[in-house]
Amino acid sequence: MTLHNYKLWLQYDGTDYSGWQIQSRHSTIQGTVTAAIERVSGERIQLVGSGRTDAGVHARGQVANFHCRLNLDPQAWLRALNTILPADIRVLRVSRAPLAFHAQHSAILKSYRYHVFTGRILPPWESRYRLHWPRPLNLDEMQRAAACLLGNHDMRSFAASGTTVKSFVRHVSLSAFKARGPRLIYTIEADGFLQHMVRSIVGTLLEVGSGRFSAADFRRILKARDRRQAGKTAPPHGLFLEKVHYGCHFKKKSARRF
Amino acid sequence: MTLHNYKLWLQYDGTDYSGWQIQSRHSTIQGTVTAAIERVSGERIQLVGSGRTDAGVHARGQVANFHCRLNLDPQAWLRALNTILPADIRVLRVSRAPLAFHAQHSAILKSYRYHVFTGRILPPWESRYRLHWPRPLNLDEMQRAAACLLGNHDMRSFAASGTTVKSFVRHVSLSAFKARGPRLIYTIEADGFLQHMVRSIVGTLLEVGSGRFSAADFRRILKARDRRQAGKTAPPHGLFLEKVHYGCHFKKKSARRF
Repeated sequence: MTLHNYKLWLQYDGTDYSGWQIQSRHSTIQGTVTAAIERVSGERIQLVGSGRTDAGVHARGQVANFHCRLNLDPQAWLRALNTILPADIRVLRVSRAPLAFHAQHSAILKSYRYHVFTGRILPPWESRYRLHWPRPLNLDEMQRAAACLLGNHDMRSFAASGTTVKSFVRHVSLSAFKARGPRLIYTIEADGFLQHMVRSIVGTLLEVGSGRFSAADFRRILKARDRRQAGKTAPPHGLFLEKVHYGCHFKKKSARRF
Repeated sequence: MTLHNYKLWLQYDGTDYSGWQIQSRHSTIQGTVTAAIERVSGERIQLVGSGRTDAGVHARGQVANFHCRLNLDPQAWLRALNTILPADIRVLRVSRAPLAFHAQHSAILKSYRYHVFTGRILPPWESRYRLHWPRPLNLDEMQRAAACLLGNHDMRSFAASGTTVKSFVRHVSLSAFKARGPRLIYTIEADGFLQHMVRSIVGTLLEVGSGRFSAADFRRILKARDRRQAGKTAPPHGLFLEKVHYGCHFKKKSARRF
């Protein structure tokens, strides 16, 4: 029996889904994509995502993989899946992958973006994808605070309470804001993310921008390794999983990071 | 008893509404905005729109007006209505208008835009706002056909069957395509529109682009004044009411055009 491993690049609008992870009673991304693949393959498959996204979180470049016996041309998979899937989930690309490729364990780097709209009136077509924050923000101070995250840090202060992982240390290689008029985008790139980590960071950075915390406070919060010190968790709808990087040595990546 | 006349500029995502016009059993834009105004004013009002938009059609610049006894600052109306209304309907601006101002009868010019995506995979966040047409289109021929509409024409070929109006003649002052990569936008500006007119025109222009009709055929269809000659009515979700113009002499405009 020959097994094939297929790698998928996915985009989705998470608004109408209860997150990535399959659940029996709720509509999820993993469940919807799995059902579409199984309709094509006629066999049960296990869809592995690079990581879970929370309910309401979107993805511009989620990566997943699955093994199956069906030997089908990647272009045929692409066409078939996009025909079956609803318009709010798209498969951007399908490729064959080495059997050992694992979308979660093989990932070496991921990036997320959080979108904020600071204008007074949020256009209806942006309301599913941006947090509306119609109050002044001190962008310079937020930028300074965001930069504190660069490098290796124990991220316990920004992890969901009850998170059980071997290590809370993550390496952040990018953490910065870009503003274009009333649209503010925060980008963070790291070798791994804890549950709610980006949303907790953004929620705390917004409190820096509002003057409740300074950049120095933000650094203290990070060092405290205590979730209770941080700000509120920002709502999910402004968040996009942007990109997952694998590099050529994906097998060397340890499993613990995601 | 002093009456006040308020003019509203509205944006909406029409996806989840059964069009503009109020209906007892379905959620509509007019019904939703009327309810919000009445919650503020405490009195029954009649909301007049510049024209009806079909179910699923969006607006970037719909204009409406209503008379009421409540004397409220336009900024207070703006804040109150945007607090009450759902995120898919926004009030962009409120102003006081002369008592005689009538959003429908006073309009002298309106513009619509129709959005098409010709790429292979339509991003999830554009699926509510663009028609997906992943087939080649002859844009030059479509542009030539679109230009046939400029000037005064009897638009019977592009009116919904059963339309009863005194005159089918409309003056089209702009009718053209703009392409940016896989995104195609058709803009039409006229002194008035018949029911389904833009969608019938776009549906026929897409058949020109697909090679079923030539620009000369399009001109013949226009001259035929016969709905059966034209192409299919394009779906509503690519259509936006862009702008309504009033000018300074809005009272001189005859009522029949909209």
